[in-house]
Amino acid sequence: MSAAEGVLDLLAALAPVGRDARTGGYDRPGFGTAERECREWFLDEARRRDLQVERDGNGNLVAWWRTGPPAVGGVVTGSHLDSVPQGGAFDGPLGVTSALAAVDVLRERGATPRRPLGVAVFAEEEGSRFGLACLGSRLLSGALPPARLRDLRDRDGRTAADALAELDLPAPPGPADLLQTPSAFVELHVEQGRDLVDRGAAVAVATAIRPHGRWRLDLRGRADHAGTTALADRDDPMLHLADAVLAARQEAEAAAALATVGRVHVEPNATNAIPSLVRAWLDVRGADETSVRAVVTGVGAAAGVEPVEESWSPETRFPEQLRERLAATLGGVPRIPTGAGHDAGVLAAAGVPAAMIFVRNPSGVSHSPVEHAEPGDCVSGVLALADVLEELACR
Amino acid sequence: MSAAEGVLDLLAALAPVGRDARTGGYDRPGFGTAERECREWFLDEARRRDLQVERDGNGNLVAWWRTGPPAVGGVVTGSHLDSVPQGGAFDGPLGVTSALAAVDVLRERGATPRRPLGVAVFAEEEGSRFGLACLGSRLLSGALPPARLRDLRDRDGRTAADALAELDLPAPPGPADLLQTPSAFVELHVEQGRDLVDRGAAVAVATAIRPHGRWRLDLRGRADHAGTTALADRDDPMLHLADAVLAARQEAEAAAALATVGRVHVEPNATNAIPSLVRAWLDVRGADETSVRAVVTGVGAAAGVEPVEESWSPETRFPEQLRERLAATLGGVPRIPTGAGHDAGVLAAAGVPAAMIFVRNPSGVSHSPVEHAEPGDCVSGVLALADVLEELACR
Repeated sequence: MSAAEGVLDLLAALAPVGRDARTGGYDRPGFGTAERECREWFLDEARRRDLQVERDGNGNLVAWWRTGPPAVGGVVTGSHLDSVPQGGAFDGPLGVTSALAAVDVLRERGATPRRPLGVAVFAEEEGSRFGLACLGSRLLSGALPPARLRDLRDRDGRTAADALAELDLPAPPGPADLLQTPSAFVELHVEQGRDLVDRGAAVAVATAIRPHGRWRLDLRGRADHAGTTALADRDDPMLHLADAVLAARQEAEAAAALATVGRVHVEPNATNAIPSLVRAWLDVRGADETSVRAVVTGVGAAAGVEPVEESWSPETRFPEQLRERLAATLGGVPRIPTGAGHDAGVLAAAGVPAAMIFVRNPSGVSHSPVEHAEPGDCVSGVLALADVLEELACR
Repeated sequence: MSAAEGVLDLLAALAPVGRDARTGGYDRPGFGTAERECREWFLDEARRRDLQVERDGNGNLVAWWRTGPPAVGGVVTGSHLDSVPQGGAFDGPLGVTSALAAVDVLRERGATPRRPLGVAVFAEEEGSRFGLACLGSRLLSGALPPARLRDLRDRDGRTAADALAELDLPAPPGPADLLQTPSAFVELHVEQGRDLVDRGAAVAVATAIRPHGRWRLDLRGRADHAGTTALADRDDPMLHLADAVLAARQEAEAAAALATVGRVHVEPNATNAIPSLVRAWLDVRGADETSVRAVVTGVGAAAGVEPVEESWSPETRFPEQLRERLAATLGGVPRIPTGAGHDAGVLAAAGVPAAMIFVRNPSGVSHSPVEHAEPGDCVSGVLALADVLEELACR
């Protein structure tokens, strides 16, 4: 077996962790048991490769391959190990396992980094637990003031500040130099659409992450008995949810954007009680900020509430020079945009020279148990990443 | 303080149990900690009155006032102590506290029952935990075969069979003679609408419980990434939920019925994932079965699924002779129907001579923290119940 094929063993080692046997989906919320188990696995793999692990106060990790004294200007690759509820096996872990396998490929080739080469694991990328995606990279890069951690709560009411305080981290949360002002950050990620299927290519490089955000709709009504309250006397927020869901689809079609209501919370959530509160979360992405804002405004008007902005990410364009260097190294692979946020996008927005490599996903589907990457494409991804790291760190 | 006014102290003793300090609502799911605390309180109150407590295998209790040897043909009153999530203080407890206070009134009057007089507490009346209302009275009366308990699950996946098995009950679940073939059962209950407000009356007797049922809608889609999946490629069950909610309102208006979607379960319920499953529960009540079935069929067609019937209660008419005897005893109070199910309805359907007394609710609202009954009306309710029990048991 080649070093690149080792990625398949690494993926296989993670396959049972946090897996729902009934659905095949993964539940690895940030800072939870399953994600911690994935991190323990990562620390073992780093140790087996003599990589030096460093941590920051935000739950992020980097395993360094250093051939000289510690230095700035290194090259970092990596991704995340947390998942959405019932997520797939590749979103996150493919980037981490490919990074470890790429280190093995470089060693097999006898390549020696002239710059420090780091493999990063970022914390709470999906935002499934505290509602804010890319929590670890936002804190590290200074995009999120650590004081905001006291306002972010999980479904049990625990704050992100408390969750981080429990982790025995080496520093308080906040901006950190864990990546040591890298000369490049490259994240490999499974594609989350069908673009590479249509193009017949195994890998691509990213041009940009489209602008996107999350809004909360607090739809309030009056709890009442379902069996005795006349229709005319009801103040039923479930009707406003229905209006919001249908408006989201219509407004998104009109703006050529994407809008989704994927998370709903109902109080008291009893069959025989009209709800007092329906809380819904609206995810909107588009080609530009104007089209995204138009959708949000339209949905708020249809539901009769002012949407509360929980996060907003403007368009992130990956630096053209680095992207073209990657594309040239990889023999002119496709260049594609994406609607999904990533730690690489947060870092790029903070001024880090960042780039992404996407690996084909025949299902075209992500955040789902059917998300997939063929073994051959995973190996192609590792080889592409190794080529890029060799170009960036070893020449 | 008169014996009838004692109902206010009894209500005050229960007021803190299971109360959410933030909302003022009550969370007393069947067989849960708060309901158990209410039952302990009931056992203490029964003991203070020298009432003999008997139990069945279904979690139901009766506290007997017997002046002669045990006998059939007694008179039973009572209600339940569990609540919907975020319910009010009166739905259930008003019937139990009024029953205890009515015993005190009869003793104050020097009345002596010629028949055994029982105060009953029924288990899981709201069905908030296992989804089936009136679980205790359905089991006791034989309306629910105990084998069905293995199919009823709470949100944690525990079956009702397991929950009952844990309770150290004197018999296995199933039909029981706990009420000892009563000559009458009378349930006092807070009104759950505005009828008595409009009529300017403190109490009324019930004519009938309208037909009603609960259906489950299993709306299936395909989980997918909210940021990358084209609208045209989506199979998003949240859209079907919206159609179902709006159809429920329209069909109910057309059929002059009541329809409510008050409980929703979403998988994976993540902001950035299109749901794979939205499960919704539909509660429908109407003047007759035809109108109820028309609503259910219409909602199923709009949502594109076959609704799964979780419970069905045909119209229950309370026996006219007993009802008129109550109304005459109470000096010609109003006679009103209700859309809410009650243990008295389950018993009436099983052939028990059952009746109900409603107490005015100025909010017109139930299954909500704002549900209310004025102290003066609570006392009027106790006196009405005492008059009725004296008529039925002491003459």
